Amino acid sequence: MHSILPRSLQNLIAEFEKLPGIGPKSAARMAYYMLRAPESESKKLSMVLGRLKSEVTTCKECFNVSESDICIVCRDESRDSKLLCVVEEPLDVVAIEKSGAYKGRYHVLGGVISPINGIGPEELRMKELIKRIKSDSQIKELIIGTNPNLEGEATAMYLARKVRTTRKDVGISRLARGLPTGADLEYADNLTLKRSLEGRTEFS
Amino acid sequence: MHSILPRSLQNLIAEFEKLPGIGPKSAARMAYYMLRAPESESKKLSMVLGRLKSEVTTCKECFNVSESDICIVCRDESRDSKLLCVVEEPLDVVAIEKSGAYKGRYHVLGGVISPINGIGPEELRMKELIKRIKSDSQIKELIIGTNPNLEGEATAMYLARKVRTTRKDVGISRLARGLPTGADLEYADNLTLKRSLEGRTEFS
Repeated sequence: MHSILPRSLQNLIAEFEKLPGIGPKSAARMAYYMLRAPESESKKLSMVLGRLKSEVTTCKECFNVSESDICIVCRDESRDSKLLCVVEEPLDVVAIEKSGAYKGRYHVLGGVISPINGIGPEELRMKELIKRIKSDSQIKELIIGTNPNLEGEATAMYLARKVRTTRKDVGISRLARGLPTGADLEYADNLTLKRSLEGRTEFS
Repeated sequence: MHSILPRSLQNLIAEFEKLPGIGPKSAARMAYYMLRAPESESKKLSMVLGRLKSEVTTCKECFNVSESDICIVCRDESRDSKLLCVVEEPLDVVAIEKSGAYKGRYHVLGGVISPINGIGPEELRMKELIKRIKSDSQIKELIIGTNPNLEGEATAMYLARKVRTTRKDVGISRLARGLPTGADLEYADNLTLKRSLEGRTEFS
């Protein structure tokens, strides 16, 4: 396709194309950028990539990405150990942390139940979650923070059922559904409006 | 910002963010992809990046990217040496090659004249182009293939004037402007329609 290009430029374009959301045109633009940027820049990216896998591990407690066996959130004594928020991916943890509205701990499932993609509960950190809830009597509420889509909802339901049969004294909640801040009622989809009506809160 | 993330993951996100068209969210998604992909993938990208600068050079003749001092297009004896197409960037050469409609040679300017960005003719391969046209009497037509936007047009005009004072016997042409294939007249912008009327061709 890019046959008149130097082989190593073609290779770089091919590697960039593997990244999520990157098509052939973006990959080519990125590769050219790298070629024109100072050598220090490609060397830096090369170095960071080379060390990535050896420097990043998974927290043995919550399965979030971590630099050590136990991540900084799990180690943090000031965290509210009564709250446990279950999310799909490490980036969801970053998003919730940025909101500044949560001070409990996390459990990262590593995905959602998705039969089409061959992902069942066994492929996720579900067993570990149940074990954690069973052994840690401090946990009083489980906040299910899976994505508000079909697979996220199915996973939430599966999870809630499992947890309920494990420990009766744990409250189970789900992140509120409704209109996002700054939204326009006129353009909101039916389901979002339906949920925002069902979940309406008393005006204070 | 991503302060709860492992340092090397943050570094990788920061490096990806420098790439053109990549925002913080895309960069994070790309970094996570790399973390979850087999180690061979990050190692491969790391290796390709590390070798990029040393393996890719610039053709001394046309200033396109090349593996050797003279690129494969300039070395190719079967190319029509009467035609010379001037483009802004190496990716433009790839695009024209893909069309399969051109068999001449190229000259890569390395950008366009852009006073706002402090880029004058001296920053481009303009002098080299004039020298090339002066010394290579085989060249009979110069096709100006700069982009059809303000800066591309200004560069084309500057170039045409320069070439005309250098050699009178060289034809100067510009890539046709008009409706792109598959376009909808209804949605075409005024300038494109104007150009497509001005440049109308006889129906054959």
